[in-house]
Parts: sequence; structure tokens; C-alpha cells
Amino acid sequence: MSPKITTELLKQLRQVMKNPRYVQEPVQAYIVPSGDAHQSEYIAPCDCRRAFISGFDGSAGTAIVTEQHAAMWTDGRYFLQAAHQMDSNWTLMKMGLKDTPTQEDWLVSVLPEGSKVGVDPFIIPADQWKRMSKALRSAGHDLVPVKENLIDTIWTDCPQRPCKPLITLDLSYTGLSWRDKIVALRSKMAERKVMWFVVTALDEVAWLFNLRGSDVEYNPVFFAYAVIGVNTIRLFIDGDRMMDPAVREHLQLDSTLEPEFKIQVMPYRSILSELQAVGAGLSPKEKVWLSDKASYALTEAIPKAYRYLTPYTPICIAKAVKNTAETEGMRRAHIKDAVALCELFNWLEKEVPKGTVTEIVASDKAEEFRSQQKDFVELSFATISSTGPNGAIIHYKPVPETNRTLSVNEIFLLDSGAQYKDGTTDVTRTMHFGTPSAYEKECFTYVLKGHIAVSAAIFPNGTKGHLLDSFARSALWDCGLDYLHGTGHGVGSFLNVHEGPCGISYKTFADEPLEAGMIVSDEPGYYEDGSFGIRIENVVLVIPAETKYNFKNRGSLTFEPLTLVPIQTKMIDVNLLTEKECNWVNEYHQKCREVVGAELERQGRHEALRWLLRETEPLARVQ
Amino acid sequence: MSPKITTELLKQLRQVMKNPRYVQEPVQAYIVPSGDAHQSEYIAPCDCRRAFISGFDGSAGTAIVTEQHAAMWTDGRYFLQAAHQMDSNWTLMKMGLKDTPTQEDWLVSVLPEGSKVGVDPFIIPADQWKRMSKALRSAGHDLVPVKENLIDTIWTDCPQRPCKPLITLDLSYTGLSWRDKIVALRSKMAERKVMWFVVTALDEVAWLFNLRGSDVEYNPVFFAYAVIGVNTIRLFIDGDRMMDPAVREHLQLDSTLEPEFKIQVMPYRSILSELQAVGAGLSPKEKVWLSDKASYALTEAIPKAYRYLTPYTPICIAKAVKNTAETEGMRRAHIKDAVALCELFNWLEKEVPKGTVTEIVASDKAEEFRSQQKDFVELSFATISSTGPNGAIIHYKPVPETNRTLSVNEIFLLDSGAQYKDGTTDVTRTMHFGTPSAYEKECFTYVLKGHIAVSAAIFPNGTKGHLLDSFARSALWDCGLDYLHGTGHGVGSFLNVHEGPCGISYKTFADEPLEAGMIVSDEPGYYEDGSFGIRIENVVLVIPAETKYNFKNRGSLTFEPLTLVPIQTKMIDVNLLTEKECNWVNEYHQKCREVVGAELERQGRHEALRWLLRETEPLARVQ
Repeated sequence: MSPKITTELLKQLRQVMKNPRYVQEPVQAYIVPSGDAHQSEYIAPCDCRRAFISGFDGSAGTAIVTEQHAAMWTDGRYFLQAAHQMDSNWTLMKMGLKDTPTQEDWLVSVLPEGSKVGVDPFIIPADQWKRMSKALRSAGHDLVPVKENLIDTIWTDCPQRPCKPLITLDLSYTGLSWRDKIVALRSKMAERKVMWFVVTALDEVAWLFNLRGSDVEYNPVFFAYAVIGVNTIRLFIDGDRMMDPAVREHLQLDSTLEPEFKIQVMPYRSILSELQAVGAGLSPKEKVWLSDKASYALTEAIPKAYRYLTPYTPICIAKAVKNTAETEGMRRAHIKDAVALCELFNWLEKEVPKGTVTEIVASDKAEEFRSQQKDFVELSFATISSTGPNGAIIHYKPVPETNRTLSVNEIFLLDSGAQYKDGTTDVTRTMHFGTPSAYEKECFTYVLKGHIAVSAAIFPNGTKGHLLDSFARSALWDCGLDYLHGTGHGVGSFLNVHEGPCGISYKTFADEPLEAGMIVSDEPGYYEDGSFGIRIENVVLVIPAETKYNFKNRGSLTFEPLTLVPIQTKMIDVNLLTEKECNWVNEYHQKCREVVGAELERQGRHEALRWLLRETEPLARVQ
Repeated sequence: MSPKITTELLKQLRQVMKNPRYVQEPVQAYIVPSGDAHQSEYIAPCDCRRAFISGFDGSAGTAIVTEQHAAMWTDGRYFLQAAHQMDSNWTLMKMGLKDTPTQEDWLVSVLPEGSKVGVDPFIIPADQWKRMSKALRSAGHDLVPVKENLIDTIWTDCPQRPCKPLITLDLSYTGLSWRDKIVALRSKMAERKVMWFVVTALDEVAWLFNLRGSDVEYNPVFFAYAVIGVNTIRLFIDGDRMMDPAVREHLQLDSTLEPEFKIQVMPYRSILSELQAVGAGLSPKEKVWLSDKASYALTEAIPKAYRYLTPYTPICIAKAVKNTAETEGMRRAHIKDAVALCELFNWLEKEVPKGTVTEIVASDKAEEFRSQQKDFVELSFATISSTGPNGAIIHYKPVPETNRTLSVNEIFLLDSGAQYKDGTTDVTRTMHFGTPSAYEKECFTYVLKGHIAVSAAIFPNGTKGHLLDSFARSALWDCGLDYLHGTGHGVGSFLNVHEGPCGISYKTFADEPLEAGMIVSDEPGYYEDGSFGIRIENVVLVIPAETKYNFKNRGSLTFEPLTLVPIQTKMIDVNLLTEKECNWVNEYHQKCREVVGAELERQGRHEALRWLLRETEPLARVQ
């Protein structure tokens, strides 16, 4: 990796920061955040502005350019990568280290008095704007919105915003029509006495209308906004994709409908002016509901007194609780995914000893097997295929420069998943194709104990996921070990592989309580820098639990694994497992045998079936 | 309990709410919070204004009186008590129930347009003022400070503010002189670039100056404020207690000292004017550090731009980490406390079958045995002595109307503690003096498993206590049971039995990380309304843990029980314990035998010693 040379680009950016064509008054600093106008985790190439200006293309980072300086804030996952990708024009600000200033403090320390700091109001979330604006103002500076994105003005070969065809999902996939979803949303609006709801997150637009797209890699979403009134529906979307007869039929665009279900289709860019018109026409007590993560531009369109902001939208919460059609779809998707992985691991077992399988080959092979499955759409994230020391890089993605050959002497960690029309998968397995050391087995077994502790946990209805995080770490903690990431995230149903509002992490307190039908990942790990990485990840469904007693009639919950891929028994030190844990593994493997075995049989994949049967032999604990 | 008749009082209050002698303009509502000017948990009789106006004397509650209404907000612990103590003039607002309005929402719903809502600016914390003021302003009302407390104007027989003599603590108790504590505080101030620090919490004043008092029951504190500058020390305190030669000597009031250690003693009430003078004299960049829980009055004395507010003060954090002198003192105090409880339980075992021991008798007897111990000062909180169904009332305190006789048929729960000059104790034991039922033993054993899970937990340095809370619940959760309170609180060293900034609770996320030297309680429970209560509480010290590995060189922590009182083995269903848990109990009891046994021997308490030996016989697990 050689760094991007940015001298000329920074010069151009500093010029437009003073150019009256773009800024009312010169700005002394310009902020380039990571996100797009929808605060997406995965973004389209045209939105990779921070990568364009700096060269650093990790998933998280904020660039700030002043007349004298260029600085990049990113977190521990990306210190090395950012340092490699950026030239000497850039100062790396290592977030989380004690001596690293916040963006606000740094700006205050470098700016001349009374400076203006510019940012694209469509990219910065309203809550961030508020925090930063307050800090700058108290030091005598101003945060100002710069309507035209200044990076776009100098990015001459900027790719087009994607505008790909849409997929319509019928009731057998979604379980609920978009009309019923609108009805439910309007009833939530009525509860909170709001007149309008603005849908800004891409997966929320997709979920609401039972549509999917492919504008962003891995996430089956499309660029759009929606504004739902008590009897109007406005969908802001570009391109001729609304000409597709299937889409028109699905949205009933050409039917005679009750007016409150008539969808008005409008240009994507017109959201701001439309919302401003809504804002201007409000009478007292008419509130507009927005996510507090919505962009500053859209939030400002509604006068402050009329805004109703919440951290999680009613769509985000409804989307998280999967209905029967969705959970059945997720089950099917996970069985197909398990078939693909049985094929892959069987293939690897034969091929790895030959010394010809690299991380990239393994990754491609995984995709090949997945793509053979019915309703496969694409991968759900960039496959983490890592062996030996690469496994310790938590967000590793093999590239030719780092590509390592799998061997019988190293641990192999594969974290991968796919989008099927009926569901989204995300699974991590850690394998050894030779003989693991006692230490490797010991660490693997602690991780497994943590995985089981979460998966088998029983907890009261209303419990937030963050309260379960320590269960995943307890066995590691007992030996002085740990892992520096959360334990689980929400998973969408043929939607984003990471979604809110629930999760299992020590880092957040604002998650919504877990409830039956929610789907999260359970993925503890252990990483030893320079030598290996271990992670065991299943996607699990929150289900009611049967308990002996029922305190205050609250009811209890537990998890059912949707992922049904064998956990390599060769890596387990059985003597470290309790009887209960040992039974958990055996019952899990019995279910893999039955469910995935039947599908392998049905698909005539006999060799993979034999592999599955071999890998799911019951563990025997020495009494 | 008959309710307090408040008709006349409310009439008087409503008159002064309009009386220009006390209010610049009439206030349409007046808020009477629970606290005192120091946001203390336990308050002096003269500060029990909410109890005076309403009759409700629980520890938490806020009264609001308007021209038409009188309403009381309190939480689930006190619904019953408040309903009994208040007459029909009052509406009970049950906090935590879905349909209960917040104080702000309720005010907005009942007030005429453009109302003024009054509150004593010395009683309301700045953060609460901010929240409430904002909500009222957005509805067109104003929150206004009423300088003279309106309750005090109608409380003709209001008791005097206590002003009792002080106790000086020498280095053998505190481990650090007040001068060294001032030096450490000033170095924290220098780190944050603040020029002044305002000490508002009573236990922080007491800790800083190595003084104790008895102005408030159970908490060995005294009414005072302090303002520490970079080279000045001002102590605001009333009465002739500063005439005590021991105090003068301790504070070196009559010595020739370096000016930066010279303490200026000023009247308690002059804090406001002095702080206003400080505020008026600040030059740019001179900041004043206050707790964000400090009163609105004191916070307002410092212009906004000069305030540096934090949720935990440097004193609060320093105070939480006990030094060797303090931990040794706490150990001694807990051994003496254990001696008293061995005496008590031995006595109860003989007396309860006679049917003459009531909850109050047991409570008094506990105090009697404690008071025989060296350096005993007072109790550290109101003893919870409860049998049978009373045990299920989590904050029960026996009074003649509820006083129940202990019997061989009911579970007895005793939560009690004391202040000794060398330390503070807080211990709960749950006993049966007959034959417990299988179900009672089952529940007790789950609680014990939770207690052990926390006490034996090993966790990385830097872990916050709230991450351990679920460990205490896991065994209960498995059977569908739970308890509706936190698991632990910080404990002071001959100071408040409840102190920040650490604790073990699912309810808070803002606790400070645990570190070696901190002292917390570990007190899971289980309560069955109308039949029994179970709680097992030890005070535990955070200590470094030895682990097999040491991830990222972070080091690990665990707990050492300071409380050394037998856990009744009769209540344990040994078959529900794992081998590890069984060993924990046996090792704990072995330590009780050795350490407390030696002290009982030394004090010649042979009968109690025999009881201890009997109660600490090792458990035998059926293999």
C-alpha cells in the first residue's frame, strides 16, 4: 500500500473553501465526515469523499482540513491502515488514546479567532452538528452549513450516484404488506401525536415499502427518502426504476386507491424543499417525527418547536421484531448458507494440505458455494477470510498484498455471510486443518463457553442486550483474557447485516430491550496479535423461554440459533466444558445433522453430508 | 398510620406563594423536592420539608403544590406508604407506571398560561433545574428561584439546623493528611486547568478535612461547604465547633502556615455571596469546578462560561479508592461487626422459639451488641429487621404498627450496619430458626449463587461495575426469578454507607470503572410479596486478581469479602451448588472461623464462638 498523494487536492480544496461561488464567506476549516446523507454504515463509491480527499478508505474516520493542517480522526481498528494510506500532508488523530484531542478541541487550538468551520449539512447528523456547533460557538467560532459539497466540486471523476433496478418482495417474504406497515406507522404517529414522519435511513425506506435495491454494496437498499403524513405518502426516488411495471404494480401506482395510500413519487433531491414546505405549513401542536441521527439539513427544515426527535424510529423498532414469514425466511436462508459452508469446509479440508488455497481463494470459493443456493442475491459484507496472524486483525479483508496461504499449521477464521431473498446470514467459524496446540484449543474453548453462555442465557422480558455482554466474557476473564469488540448486533431480514436498535455490547446503554422475534448475532472472540484469531458467531433468534417460575408474570426469553454450521470439535478441550455446555454442543450438532443434513441430502451433496456427519459426532466428556 | 391533615398547611402555603414578602411575583406552582442544599441522601429533620407539607416521609419523593392541586411523585418502594401517610388533598403520582405524567408534563397540563413555577434554588440541583426549566419554557411557563424557602415560612416549629461537635481523624484512620488531600486536589485542578473547586457534598467536605460530625443521622457528616483555590482554602461552617481546641489543632488554625494551607473559616450561609464574589472576579480562562449535582443557586453564582461541571468530582473519585489505613480500618470494623452479629444470631437462636422476640427487639439487640464494640459511633442506616411477609418489603423498617414476632416458621431478614471510627459496615443475612421449606431453600440458594458469582468474578482492570450486575441474576433468571433492585453500592470509610462513583447495577451506565481499593456491597435478593424476603449482602473490597494470562497487560481484579458473618448453611440446597460454589462457601466460612473466631476468643465471647463454629461446618456436596 503506498499512500495517496494529496498535495494538489488539498490545495484545490483550500481554494474552494474561499471561493464565493461555493461559500458565502470563506471557511477556515472544512469537515469531511465518513457518512452519506442517510448516515449509512456502508456507502456508495460517490459518497466516499473522505477516502477521496485523504486516501484512507477504512469504514470510520473524519477528515478536517484547515488552511494549514489536514487531520484524520479514526479508531484503533484503523491506525495502521490510515497511517499507510495517507501521505505526510495528514496528521493521524488516534481516537481513544488519552492525548488525542477531540475534533472540537483541536479546531479551537488551531483556528484563528472568529473562524468559520464548514460542513455539508446533508452529511452531518443533527446530533453531531449540535454538539460541535455548541463547542465551537463557546470558543468564538461558527459552524456553518456549506450547501454544495466542496469535495464534489473538486472531484472531477466522481462516480455517478447508483440508481439500480428495484426488487419487489411479496407477502411470502415480508409477512406484512406495505399498506399494513403504513397503517401501523400511522398508529404509532397518532400515539405520539405527530402529523408527519420522515424516513431517512435507507433500510427503513426499503423495509417500509417491501422493496430492495442494490445501490450500495452488501446492503440491499436504494437511495430514497419518504415522508409519511396522516393521509399522504411521498417517496423521493430518482431514475426510471419507477417505470418498472412490477414496481408500479407493487406500489399500486396506477390503481385507484384510497387517497391515504396513494404514493406520490418525487425526485430524490426535492426532499429538502418539500420538507421545508411541510415545515412552513405547520400549525401549532403539529409535530414532525425524525430520527435524531437525521441530517442537519433535513432536521433544520422543520422549525425547532415542531420537531419530535427520537434515537430510534418506530420503523427501526418494528423492523427489528421479525414476523413469522421473516423468521421462516431467515431459517431457510441459514439452512442454505449452512449447506454452502459444509461444502466449503469439506473442500478446504481436502485442498488446504496441498498448499494452494489462499485467503482470497477460500473467500471466492465461499461465495461460489453460496451463489449456488436458491434466491442468493449477493454477500452481506466483505468476507473476512484470514489465517494465522491475519486472524488477529479483527476487520481484516484479504487483499493481494496480505493474502496468506492456508496451511495445516495455522488457525483459519472465516467470517462471512450472504443476502438471500428470504434472509440475511452472518456466520464465523474458526477451523484448524492440522493439529491445534493445547493453547489454541484452550482459548477456543473459552470463546465457545462465552458463546454458549449467551446463546443459552435465560433472561426476563424487557432485558436490554447489553446486560448479557459479560456472560460472553466470563470464561475469558477468569483466565485474564478478553476481546475488544461487542458481542452481537441486530441482523436485518434480507436487509442490512448490522441494524439497530438491539445488540449485545458493553459499549452501549441506549439499546432497546430484547423481545421475541428480534434477531442478533452472538460472536465472542479472542485475538492474539501476530499469531491467531478465534471467533465463533451464530445468528440467533430471540424466543420465549419456559421457566420453572414466572416472577411478576414477566415471562422469560432465550435464544434459538438460526446458524446451523458445525463448530469444529477438534478445537474443543472437552475437559474445560461443564456438562451443561457439553450437552449444548451435542444438541446443537444434532440439530445441524438433522436440519442441514436433510437439505444436503435433498440437494444431492453427499460428500458434504458425510463431512457434516463426521464433524457433528457427539463430544464425550471425561467424568 | 393515619394520614397527616394538610388542609390548613396547604392553604398557608398557597398564601405565601402569592405574598410579595417572599415572591417577586406570585408563583402558580411551588416545587418541594426531597433533598437538602447538599443533595444528601439522608437529611436532617429541619430539611424534611416535603414530609412536613405532605405527611409522606419516605426517602424519595417530590411534592408540587399549585393553587388547585397538590401532587406527590414517588417510586414503587413507597406507593403504599405514601398512600397511607397523605390525606385526600394529595394526588399520588406513581413513578415508573406507564400512565404517570412527569412533573413537567403534569405542570404543563394543569397550569394557566404563562405561569411561574417556584422552587428553592438551594435545594434543586443544577441539572434538574436545567431540564425542568427547559420543558416549562417550551410550554410558555417560567421556572423561578424563590430565595426564601416557602415551607420554612409556614413551618413554625421547624427544628434548628443541627450543629454538633466534630470528630477529628488522625493519620492512623485516614492514611492521608488533609494537607496532602488538598495537594492532590490542586494537582487534579491543575490537570483540568481550573482555578477553583467548590465542595458541596457533605461527605466530600468531611473526607477532605479528615473530620466527621453527627448533624445527620447515620451519616457522620456536618453542614459545611468548602471552596478550594490554587492558594486559598475557605471552609464555610457554623457554630462554636470551630472553637474546639482539638479541631483547631487538627486544622492548624492557630499555626503559622504557608498561606496556601491557611484555612479561612466563614459562616455557612456566606457561601453564596463568597462564590458570587469569586464569580465576579474571574478573568477569561479561569474556570470553577463544580459537581453537576450542585445546587442551582451555587452553580448560578459562577457565570456560565466559567463553569466546569462534572458528574463525579475528583474528591468523590479519590474518596472511593481506599488507602491501606482505610482498608485496614474497614477490615477491623467488619471483624467487630461480625462479633456483634455472632452474638446476636446466637441469642436469637435461643430466644426466637420462646416467641418473645419482635422485629424491633431484634433490631435493638443488634444495636446493643454493636455498641459494645470498640470505636462504635452509631448505626450506618436504619436497621431492616423483618420477618415473614415484611421481608418482602425491600426498604422495610419495623415500627410498632407493623412489628412482627420472629418465629420458627418464618424467614428472618436482617440488613444492618454501623459506623465505627475505623470503618462503615453494611451486612444482610437471611436466617430460619426452624426448618425452611424446600422452596425457601431453593430460592435462597439461587440468591447465594448470584452472590458468589459477583464475589468470585474476575474481570479486567477498567471494568465498570454495571457490567457485573447480570452475574448476580443469572441463577435466578434461569428459573424465571429476579429482584428489582441493584446489586451493589459504594461504601464509605467511616462515612456514608452509600457513596459514588462506583456500584453494581443494571440501572446506571455512568459509574466509574472499578479499581483496586474501591469498596462496594454485593447484595442480590429474592422477594415474594406477602410471604418472604431473601437477601445475602457482603461488603467487598476490590483487589488485584492473579490470572493465568494477562491480555494486553491490563491486569485483572476480583473481590475480597470484608464482611465475615456466616451464611446460614441450613438454608442452602447443596445439590444446587456447583463444586466451585461449594468450595467458595467452605473457604468463606473457614475465614470467618479463623478471623472472627480469634476475635471472639480474644473478647471472651465463648458461647458466640461455639455458635460460629457450628454455623461454619463445611458443606458436603453429594457427588
